[in-house]
Amino acid sequence: MVQKNTEVISMDCVFCKIVKGDIPCQKLYENDKILAFLDISPIHKGHTLIIPKEHHENILDMPDETLAELAKTTKKISKAVKEATNADGFNVTQNNGAAAGQAVFHFHTHIIPRFDGDGLKTWPHKDIPEEEMKRIQEDIASFLKD
Amino acid sequence: MVQKNTEVISMDCVFCKIVKGDIPCQKLYENDKILAFLDISPIHKGHTLIIPKEHHENILDMPDETLAELAKTTKKISKAVKEATNADGFNVTQNNGAAAGQAVFHFHTHIIPRFDGDGLKTWPHKDIPEEEMKRIQEDIASFLKD
Repeated sequence: MVQKNTEVISMDCVFCKIVKGDIPCQKLYENDKILAFLDISPIHKGHTLIIPKEHHENILDMPDETLAELAKTTKKISKAVKEATNADGFNVTQNNGAAAGQAVFHFHTHIIPRFDGDGLKTWPHKDIPEEEMKRIQEDIASFLKD
Repeated sequence: MVQKNTEVISMDCVFCKIVKGDIPCQKLYENDKILAFLDISPIHKGHTLIIPKEHHENILDMPDETLAELAKTTKKISKAVKEATNADGFNVTQNNGAAAGQAVFHFHTHIIPRFDGDGLKTWPHKDIPEEEMKRIQEDIASFLKD
């Protein structure tokens, strides 16, 4: 990890290399903090990635201000993706950790255009006993007490 | 749609009824603008929903400030969900439109705890010809020009 002016760069991160211009991308949008480009391995045409230019591994590492800025930019880019692809809907998704399907360990948000009847299935739901739901509710809430 | 002081409520929306307290939920956290509770149909135990208290259908309808606030709160709640569930990772996902799997038309973000080897698969990727990638890049970028 190198601190260079206000930039934080990870030397062996493919998205940092894209930000620096060392690896090409199909750019859609950029501002001083954020870059958006096409996913090279799309689920549907127009599948877009939005990243902070600074290197942060996942949402837990993201500074609040960058996260807030990225959320607003995601809305703006979602609208463009939906209009350009004529999508019926879209998913905004973000994976944290290899267990969650994260493959590049530089925070990124996916915008995936969706079409009526495109056959992509949601994951199956579980039937969790009432007392386990109650226990996990209390456990999560206990971490959120001020 | 009823405008009531600063609140925007949709009379027949199940999440608006949860916000008003007319339908119970397993609450995890709330502040003046945001409410988080357990998904009653979880993919994994601890599957959490975060909603704005005001009624907005999807990301495109969300005021920028609410979106920014929600992004910061999502980070805070993600950390609690991960710690309470001992998850190896987690997905942060948000569906816009029925085609994208949205079932309740009040903006909501899912936090789904994930575990190594839990068997949940990502959607298959497509091989899009180079010229189509180029065309969609130009189309999306054209909507993002100032």
